[in-house]
Amino acid sequence: MSTHEKDVQFTLPGFEQAEARWKEGYSNQVNDHCEVKNRSGIEIKALYTTADWSSDRYMDHLGFPGEPPMTRGIYPSMYRGRTWTQRQLIGLGTPDDYNTRTREILSSGASALSLIPCNSVYRGYDADQVDPLLLGTCGTVINTVEDMGVCMEGIDIGNVSIGLNDPSPFTLLAFLLGVARRRGIPFEKISGTSNQSDYISHFVANHMFFRLSLPGARRVLLDHITFANQQLPHWNPVSVVGQHMQQGGATPAEAMGFTLSTAIQYANDCVERGLDPDTFLPRFTFFFDISISFFEEVAKFRAGRRIWQRIVRERFGARDPRSWRFKFHGQTSGADLTRQQPLNNIARVTTQAIAGIFGGLQSLHTDAYDEVVSTPTDHAARIAIATQNIVRDEAHLTDVIDPLGGSFYVESLTNDMEEEIEAIIARIDAAGGMYKAVEAGLVQGMIGDSALAFQEKVDSGDEKIVGVNAFKAEKENFKVEPQAYPPLERMEAQVARLKTFKAERSQAEASRALDAMARAANSKDENVFEKLVEAAYAGATHGEICAGLRRELGFGEPLVLA
Amino acid sequence: MSTHEKDVQFTLPGFEQAEARWKEGYSNQVNDHCEVKNRSGIEIKALYTTADWSSDRYMDHLGFPGEPPMTRGIYPSMYRGRTWTQRQLIGLGTPDDYNTRTREILSSGASALSLIPCNSVYRGYDADQVDPLLLGTCGTVINTVEDMGVCMEGIDIGNVSIGLNDPSPFTLLAFLLGVARRRGIPFEKISGTSNQSDYISHFVANHMFFRLSLPGARRVLLDHITFANQQLPHWNPVSVVGQHMQQGGATPAEAMGFTLSTAIQYANDCVERGLDPDTFLPRFTFFFDISISFFEEVAKFRAGRRIWQRIVRERFGARDPRSWRFKFHGQTSGADLTRQQPLNNIARVTTQAIAGIFGGLQSLHTDAYDEVVSTPTDHAARIAIATQNIVRDEAHLTDVIDPLGGSFYVESLTNDMEEEIEAIIARIDAAGGMYKAVEAGLVQGMIGDSALAFQEKVDSGDEKIVGVNAFKAEKENFKVEPQAYPPLERMEAQVARLKTFKAERSQAEASRALDAMARAANSKDENVFEKLVEAAYAGATHGEICAGLRRELGFGEPLVLA
Repeated sequence: MSTHEKDVQFTLPGFEQAEARWKEGYSNQVNDHCEVKNRSGIEIKALYTTADWSSDRYMDHLGFPGEPPMTRGIYPSMYRGRTWTQRQLIGLGTPDDYNTRTREILSSGASALSLIPCNSVYRGYDADQVDPLLLGTCGTVINTVEDMGVCMEGIDIGNVSIGLNDPSPFTLLAFLLGVARRRGIPFEKISGTSNQSDYISHFVANHMFFRLSLPGARRVLLDHITFANQQLPHWNPVSVVGQHMQQGGATPAEAMGFTLSTAIQYANDCVERGLDPDTFLPRFTFFFDISISFFEEVAKFRAGRRIWQRIVRERFGARDPRSWRFKFHGQTSGADLTRQQPLNNIARVTTQAIAGIFGGLQSLHTDAYDEVVSTPTDHAARIAIATQNIVRDEAHLTDVIDPLGGSFYVESLTNDMEEEIEAIIARIDAAGGMYKAVEAGLVQGMIGDSALAFQEKVDSGDEKIVGVNAFKAEKENFKVEPQAYPPLERMEAQVARLKTFKAERSQAEASRALDAMARAANSKDENVFEKLVEAAYAGATHGEICAGLRRELGFGEPLVLA
Repeated sequence: MSTHEKDVQFTLPGFEQAEARWKEGYSNQVNDHCEVKNRSGIEIKALYTTADWSSDRYMDHLGFPGEPPMTRGIYPSMYRGRTWTQRQLIGLGTPDDYNTRTREILSSGASALSLIPCNSVYRGYDADQVDPLLLGTCGTVINTVEDMGVCMEGIDIGNVSIGLNDPSPFTLLAFLLGVARRRGIPFEKISGTSNQSDYISHFVANHMFFRLSLPGARRVLLDHITFANQQLPHWNPVSVVGQHMQQGGATPAEAMGFTLSTAIQYANDCVERGLDPDTFLPRFTFFFDISISFFEEVAKFRAGRRIWQRIVRERFGARDPRSWRFKFHGQTSGADLTRQQPLNNIARVTTQAIAGIFGGLQSLHTDAYDEVVSTPTDHAARIAIATQNIVRDEAHLTDVIDPLGGSFYVESLTNDMEEEIEAIIARIDAAGGMYKAVEAGLVQGMIGDSALAFQEKVDSGDEKIVGVNAFKAEKENFKVEPQAYPPLERMEAQVARLKTFKAERSQAEASRALDAMARAANSKDENVFEKLVEAAYAGATHGEICAGLRRELGFGEPLVLA
């Protein structure tokens, strides 16, 4: 697809002579003919012309937005119909703190919620199981249905899309459903995404999240998908996450390739369980890092969209056009931000955000400039969301669908990235699919190599980072005030609340529900996530649920590469 | 040129059916079919395809960089050969202050100097003619060859490009040449630009600069060009400035049209004086505002480049390829910046800068976020220059020449903007050229109408400005510390230095030189700027020179429109 044979355009009168003149003029000005490559290793030429891509290929490569090959976008109207969802990832302190901050962010233009739990939650513990000093510094402490109720106080959870950073076994979703049940809101009205459902990406690049054994996580995800299919028509149970891998050092092409291979794995697992692809594929979403490698990111997303629609149709026989849509959330990459001269990060985030928008994302988180130092302060979070408003409403980047479409460079690079991504997918296919490839450490090894190669470029100065290895300031003249740690007494009060909650719940009901969940984990005929939702409603805590499933399904063990 | 008849591309199999399907899908999603227009009044469609622009037009519309039609850039290698010049406009306080700040900016990556004088200087006065409280708050107080010597202390003026904000009669250049002469640096080594030589733009939109009568300014500019032709091979005596007009309210298309019409006027004046176009056209440069209307700015610059090469070849018969090059400096538009939530301005400036780079500029000033409040603080100026470094070195925007070339939207919009700009030039031509059009107030009236129309859009909320008429913050949580006013005692010392300078110079020599300048102003055979250079070297001050020429050539009077 991306091989550019000489074609009809070369008969343009005068083209070859003009190109020869240009080459001569170029050589006269540029002595240093060093090869330029992007992060994915693709060679970047100085000039792209109609010889690299011609609009004769329009129907094959581009077509129209909303239909295959989907290059130009997954919806016919794209941002003219509705702009991306402004979804700022938020979490800190206690449920009260979260509630206050979230209402502020909604009032400054955000159109969807997100919730990041405390690291103690990620690790599977309750607040009373860890040192209070560690609580609430990077996310919100949520251990019970009651905590979730406080988080969502005054927020109409039946009418807002909620992104939960909620790895397997999905206790946050269970708590959210508990709150809905208490408020009498039917499950069908709950919409959003299980943002961190991609256990493979956690195993590969985010060990902190790794709560259950690989086979256990695989089981729970399938039950979670099945539950959503049955009871949550507006919930996306699967978000396949390229972000961790790219932040861990994967090139943009690798991150896209691994992510698509992971999605293939999950889809294959669903098919094996007997699910119809057109019931689960429309609920698959994706989550990517947007690095500052501007055109590479634009091309990565356009190529990813094209490959995914081909995969779902060719490998899975999907017929529902909703299955063909590569819906993705983009987050501007924190890996590109610097502690040095931190306000420069606003310029970086703006550049990354524009690349993501030109790539056609459905949802966007723009990093706050102080995220390199702490959980964002509210001042910095406001600038981050304002950046989205500015590029949309003032720069009018959303007037035209796929505004770079047709650019010789962008189309040629999209084809090159597509070829590179396809090669990575083929390598994973050959290893038996993503599950086996990560079990064997293949993916981790590739990421490690790429991370090392990039770091060597930074160390040698080939890749410049302003303020770090280039244009260093003699003195820092702006000091970031990090987000203050939550006062210890607030956290101690939160722990006390948890103890009260546990003391006041019906111990019998909670125990019964936890036992039922444990039995379901050992039965192939029961849905373990369904029982987990019941346990959460019955008052079981996050730590109790995680511990119970770890007993039955195994604790996640990190892979140590030789 | 920009009429898009149906052409060969419409025979692409399946195109028409797919387009019809897309239109239906689009209509189903978008109820509100409101027309979208850019600032220049051009309708923006939701989607551009190969039906809007096809690469069959490659040779006519694009060709190769460095040769006509110049759309893709004026040099064969563009930023691969050499990136744009990073030219931050600087000026404040005393000559000492300027010297300190300039050395700092050079060390943080700037590659060229600029100098903005104090408003008192713009108005034609010396420091001892105004209230000391007004001195040095927006620019540097420079009145004598001695002051310029202090400004350039320790800077190798024979090896750095210097942009002077130096309206007619160009006393700053005269002082700079005086410093060169004192240091034994030959005039041939002095390179840079008289940034504010465009007296027509001052008359139209920047009354503050308006020192001499229109006919007087016209005369001095021609002498200045002639002098540069004879003695300053690396100096650009003419910078035609669209910035004032766009900031005054002209649309991007109008700003480009008026600027090109002004350049035509100056070129015609030079031809009438008997100069060969190929001697002065290569020294014409341009200075534009880069607004946040992203694609409109990209298209404005690409269209401008194409029109200028046609004008110089068709109207002036220029044969030297250097005459065909539309060299321009871009400054991110301060008119788009807001006092509200001032750090948001970093996001705006980044967006504007990227548009300018995609437009192919040769030199760039990025505004500091606090320029809405005061002369930039050094902290904010560092971020502004870092923004340029980031988009170049981290985002790699310079890897590919004209990276958006071929985009259906960008090419179609470039053609539309070209048509719009040509229509404006035709209107000015019909009024007898730019000089007559501004004498009659035609241009000022058009700008006023456009300014009003834009303000009405802001007032109605059709045009959103984040923090101003949309997404307002309840409380400002970041306070800009404005650049401190220079201490009064420093300014009084500066005035004292001027008095000492005047007391110690040879009064006889200074008077003789001023008299010679006055005589030259009344003779058609003498070069008044040449005599002005002598007067500056002989110790005449800025105020004395301006007063002398005002006496002989008339004081600028603002035009009052009925």
